[in-house]
Amino acid sequence: MPQLSLNPDRLLPADPTTRAIARELYAQVAGAPIISPHGHTDPEWFASNAAWSNATELLLAPDHYLFRMLYSQGVSLDALGVPRRGGQMPDTDPREAWRLFAANWKLFRGTPSSMWLNHVFAEVFGIEVTLDEGTADHYFDVMGEALASPAFRPRALFERFNIELLATTEGAGDDLQHHKATRASGWGKAGAVVTTYRPDSVIDPEHDSFTRDMARFAELSGEDVTSWTGYLAAHRRRRADFRAMGATATDHGFLTPRTANLSKAQCEALFGKVMGGKADADEAELFRAQMLTEMARMSLEDGMTMQIHPGATRNHNARLFASHGRDKGADIPRGTEYVEALRPMLDLFGNEADLTVILFTLDETTYARELAPLAGHYPCLKLGPAWWFHDSPEGMRRFREMTTESAGFYNTVGFNDDTRAFLSIPARHDVARRIDCGFLARLVAEHRLADWEAAELAQELTTGLVRKAYGLKAPARVVEPA
Amino acid sequence: MPQLSLNPDRLLPADPTTRAIARELYAQVAGAPIISPHGHTDPEWFASNAAWSNATELLLAPDHYLFRMLYSQGVSLDALGVPRRGGQMPDTDPREAWRLFAANWKLFRGTPSSMWLNHVFAEVFGIEVTLDEGTADHYFDVMGEALASPAFRPRALFERFNIELLATTEGAGDDLQHHKATRASGWGKAGAVVTTYRPDSVIDPEHDSFTRDMARFAELSGEDVTSWTGYLAAHRRRRADFRAMGATATDHGFLTPRTANLSKAQCEALFGKVMGGKADADEAELFRAQMLTEMARMSLEDGMTMQIHPGATRNHNARLFASHGRDKGADIPRGTEYVEALRPMLDLFGNEADLTVILFTLDETTYARELAPLAGHYPCLKLGPAWWFHDSPEGMRRFREMTTESAGFYNTVGFNDDTRAFLSIPARHDVARRIDCGFLARLVAEHRLADWEAAELAQELTTGLVRKAYGLKAPARVVEPA
Amino acid sequence: MPQLSLNPDRLLPADPTTRAIARELYAQVAGAPIISPHGHTDPEWFASNAAWSNATELLLAPDHYLFRMLYSQGVSLDALGVPRRGGQMPDTDPREAWRLFAANWKLFRGTPSSMWLNHVFAEVFGIEVTLDEGTADHYFDVMGEALASPAFRPRALFERFNIELLATTEGAGDDLQHHKATRASGWGKAGAVVTTYRPDSVIDPEHDSFTRDMARFAELSGEDVTSWTGYLAAHRRRRADFRAMGATATDHGFLTPRTANLSKAQCEALFGKVMGGKADADEAELFRAQMLTEMARMSLEDGMTMQIHPGATRNHNARLFASHGRDKGADIPRGTEYVEALRPMLDLFGNEADLTVILFTLDETTYARELAPLAGHYPCLKLGPAWWFHDSPEGMRRFREMTTESAGFYNTVGFNDDTRAFLSIPARHDVARRIDCGFLARLVAEHRLADWEAAELAQELTTGLVRKAYGLKAPARVVEPA
Repeated sequence: MPQLSLNPDRLLPADPTTRAIARELYAQVAGAPIISPHGHTDPEWFASNAAWSNATELLLAPDHYLFRMLYSQGVSLDALGVPRRGGQMPDTDPREAWRLFAANWKLFRGTPSSMWLNHVFAEVFGIEVTLDEGTADHYFDVMGEALASPAFRPRALFERFNIELLATTEGAGDDLQHHKATRASGWGKAGAVVTTYRPDSVIDPEHDSFTRDMARFAELSGEDVTSWTGYLAAHRRRRADFRAMGATATDHGFLTPRTANLSKAQCEALFGKVMGGKADADEAELFRAQMLTEMARMSLEDGMTMQIHPGATRNHNARLFASHGRDKGADIPRGTEYVEALRPMLDLFGNEADLTVILFTLDETTYARELAPLAGHYPCLKLGPAWWFHDSPEGMRRFREMTTESAGFYNTVGFNDDTRAFLSIPARHDVARRIDCGFLARLVAEHRLADWEAAELAQELTTGLVRKAYGLKAPARVVEPA
Repeated sequence: MPQLSLNPDRLLPADPTTRAIARELYAQVAGAPIISPHGHTDPEWFASNAAWSNATELLLAPDHYLFRMLYSQGVSLDALGVPRRGGQMPDTDPREAWRLFAANWKLFRGTPSSMWLNHVFAEVFGIEVTLDEGTADHYFDVMGEALASPAFRPRALFERFNIELLATTEGAGDDLQHHKATRASGWGKAGAVVTTYRPDSVIDPEHDSFTRDMARFAELSGEDVTSWTGYLAAHRRRRADFRAMGATATDHGFLTPRTANLSKAQCEALFGKVMGGKADADEAELFRAQMLTEMARMSLEDGMTMQIHPGATRNHNARLFASHGRDKGADIPRGTEYVEALRPMLDLFGNEADLTVILFTLDETTYARELAPLAGHYPCLKLGPAWWFHDSPEGMRRFREMTTESAGFYNTVGFNDDTRAFLSIPARHDVARRIDCGFLARLVAEHRLADWEAAELAQELTTGLVRKAYGLKAPARVVEPA
Repeated sequence: MPQLSLNPDRLLPADPTTRAIARELYAQVAGAPIISPHGHTDPEWFASNAAWSNATELLLAPDHYLFRMLYSQGVSLDALGVPRRGGQMPDTDPREAWRLFAANWKLFRGTPSSMWLNHVFAEVFGIEVTLDEGTADHYFDVMGEALASPAFRPRALFERFNIELLATTEGAGDDLQHHKATRASGWGKAGAVVTTYRPDSVIDPEHDSFTRDMARFAELSGEDVTSWTGYLAAHRRRRADFRAMGATATDHGFLTPRTANLSKAQCEALFGKVMGGKADADEAELFRAQMLTEMARMSLEDGMTMQIHPGATRNHNARLFASHGRDKGADIPRGTEYVEALRPMLDLFGNEADLTVILFTLDETTYARELAPLAGHYPCLKLGPAWWFHDSPEGMRRFREMTTESAGFYNTVGFNDDTRAFLSIPARHDVARRIDCGFLARLVAEHRLADWEAAELAQELTTGLVRKAYGLKAPARVVEPA
């Protein structure tokens, strides 16, 4: 039975000279605290601190990286225990689901999922054999037993993982009750769990929860969201609510990064159409565009860092969307244009050094062509790390290779794990640190960077730049609930 | 005079650690049989088993990789013995053409053509000096003498090359007589030569042979191809004819991969316009789009694997097209969009695990952005190997680097040589095996893959995945002609 | 205080086998003369041979690579001594500006600017400590003292740099007085400074100097530029004027590489609209497109090499353009399409082996997809080197990796420094030589190229191909002014 062990040199370049340099750099950042300024973990975990049930429900069923690959090879989502639309659980034995996954584990060879999960298996659970059909039950049992123990409760793992800050993401219609409960709990690390303001579902008229979430938005903000002025005031109010729960950032994910700069009269007319349900596709797009500009304006007022995550065609598989809903591995990237799309917002705020707008992309062709030149010029722009499909060893390397020469390192913002898979967070940060150190090591080996410069940069890429970009000057303090 | 010899480590990564791993992996697949599920060799060769005439007519005049490069440097096609439109041969001495080629051989430095041809020269013909002006006659004589001998007849080379399966490609208006003759010949490997159904010229109203081939299509199918129903029936009939000649796949090469899902009434109206010669460019595009969907539907019925090869702007050089016709090195890739283009077909059949649609591209930007995410989700989709301009060491590396992390290895389908240059087939498969082993070796050297996993994958990439994707479960049997 | 020293192996691949090969190749071309066929140095320098004032005015204030990065991190252009629109200088002490730059020098880690400038500091000025706040004054003093000495006058450095040819770029409204003065001066290397014809501002109706430059164009050409015939005659006349000042090339930089092939009547009508100020955006684009075709036609007549530099969105930052004008680091690349854009011109002249059209790009996705296939087919097309944002170690590597396999080396044209930073010219050519030798070395190490082939290619990439592409068959002779 093949042994599972994590080689200490994993992901470092194979060339011995470069590897030796990379190893030294990595040693200096391997133990640094984890700063996770953008992700999708469930805040209820830290509020309730309830035990997770089993490996399938924790690791498999919620991870679209895993079930999308299995699905692509003909495995049904039901057989994997993935919930159906509306949360209805299929009648699947979690152990059987895990066995099915184990039997297909080879599908993940060469993917980041295998790196992340082997790290979780070996480091978090101490498992020493590789996953396959024969070891599936052993895995399920070992993990089940561990998860039932106090050491594997959310807060205990949070502390064990040495997390300095963890940002979750909530919608504008969220009452932040879990964040409030966490902060009220007296847990020593409560202040290290913060939220992020993601108002997509009250900005995008085409979002399937738009109407429902607007009602909730009105209620929670206490504003008249049927007028343009009241609607903007509601955003301001909720941004403040989120800041009270530690938020230092907002997040926006539409298909395009288009922005607009309409007059107040135009905004009012457009908003009227949106609220009347009469906005066509172009008008919906224009409204999202205008709202990105409004969000930038508010960020300049309240200091929140703005993140833009464009380029995903959501729910591409119509049949699967009907049966299983959103976030089921059927989001597909598209070509994305930034240069003209961002122009209206940049015309207004591009030269503001006090504004931080972090751009992400699913279209790697924009790294060297558009994003690095933009971020290497405009004071307000920074580049988010390699994202989603590109959050992988090769993807991270390409990010550095294609952005560094025009944008430098200092217009980037460190790593985002952007995950809902809490147990994989240390693995993901570890991958990023190794790849960055490998990249720096190559620059040193090619005499393009001095060794002491690389050492400084390794620290910056691990903790320095992320703290600066997200306004996290010092380790987060506990903030009392409002 | 510089010696020609093929280094046993050629194309393996230079780093000694990685190279040692790659060497071991390669040793395990170097001798595997060749499975060539998509290509353009001439089926008459195997039917007639006639000797080829000389190096110019065999290697130079039909190879657009060669004469396009020479042409780009001012060498005329006439001087290279390339036939003119309609097949008329220029009045060029083949030996003179070969000398001209030899004198310009340096133009191919760093290109896959030089790798392929040196392999042919050294391995197939046993030549031991490099090609240049001084050795041109030696080459021409050695190859001419060899080609006149029984050991260099098509069937003998087929056997020597250890080909398990070779698919040719024929149009819907082809009577498959050469395939029938081959199968009737009693040659032991006859069943290893199969055809592929490529109905472009009866699907694309803008194809220059559309009218002629439709007539032939009607004749061969015995169907009334002037009605939509009859036209579809003719396709079904001809697909069956092709399957009788071993075909397990169809192939479709239009400028875009656009698909459509029209109602029957819409199809009939559109088909009427097409047949009446009244379809404009948009309607021609819509008809091709609808027919891709119809082909997918038929594949689901009859089990044939469907290949889509989009993205080439054919015959870009108008003057050369007028004088020399198609396939003269003037096809130029274009940016290609898949996410919206494939949606109508995927809405219908995307979730069918029994359907196999293999996507190719000439636009490498789609590897990581569109194709790997699509293939890593939809059960019906698989990724074809690096194609045409990208069927090269760097191109193959980029393919693995940009697709593996999202699609894995198991959503790819092994190698296609896609060539009309029969003698280069072993060279091309050898390049693919070396590059794949080099890529796997890097993953092992970076501890991203275990050595035993890499060994399994090397076998899969060489023979396993291609057999599965093209429905070649066992070595092909001889099928008696219908 | 860290030492500044240039490692002799810098930029060569880290793998010891490959590095050893690269080192040998590089040794053969390191001392070759510099041929700079395209750039933006100021011809007045060589006419007047006046001393440069100080490091800030020479190295910092004119270099948009430097101040764009500093600006992106919140440093104002005024504080760096960058002139305002119209040339007005900010009231900034050059020494203070230099200190500010030095304090932010770390921003350039990993960028080509740091490689280029360290080369200038160490090789040109002999400085032995790294730049930082503590050494800023030392730098400023050492460089100031040097620049005041005869050995650092433009002509002395030109000779010291071993420049065989240096092309500047002038507009169609330039009287070439500095070139005339240089040639009249009796300086032995006068003939090595040549001009390039760049008529953008009299071809682009949307150029902000169009009206002014057309008047100057009329005056200098003595033609009636208000008629289409006269306008074309004026171009012919000025091309001849430029050739008299050594020009062998023209240069054209519009947003797109679109070409057109209108009838004479259409041209006259369009030109009438342009001159009447009535051309809308589409017509302005069409006029530029037609003029690219006209320039190609004239190149075929007069033998001048034609360069096309498309793809930059100029002056993207409206506020900065208002305050500081053009060329202030706010030009951002855009996706660029060549296949259809060039078709009209290629239909006319694509098959002309006597015409040389050099294509550049800011959109690397076109390297393998469009540009290499086009240049690997059309006799008139050649590929310019990696340009602007991609004129960097990683960018140059990508250029070779993505173009060589389809276009070969012989459809490329050597290196362009394309710079206004005269002191960095040796550094830039050195980077290109090192990267090219590293790329060739990898091909040798992977047994894809013989060592003697690589040695020949290193020479070709350094001096052979550039001489051929720009019609510089022999070292430039002194030409007496007309």
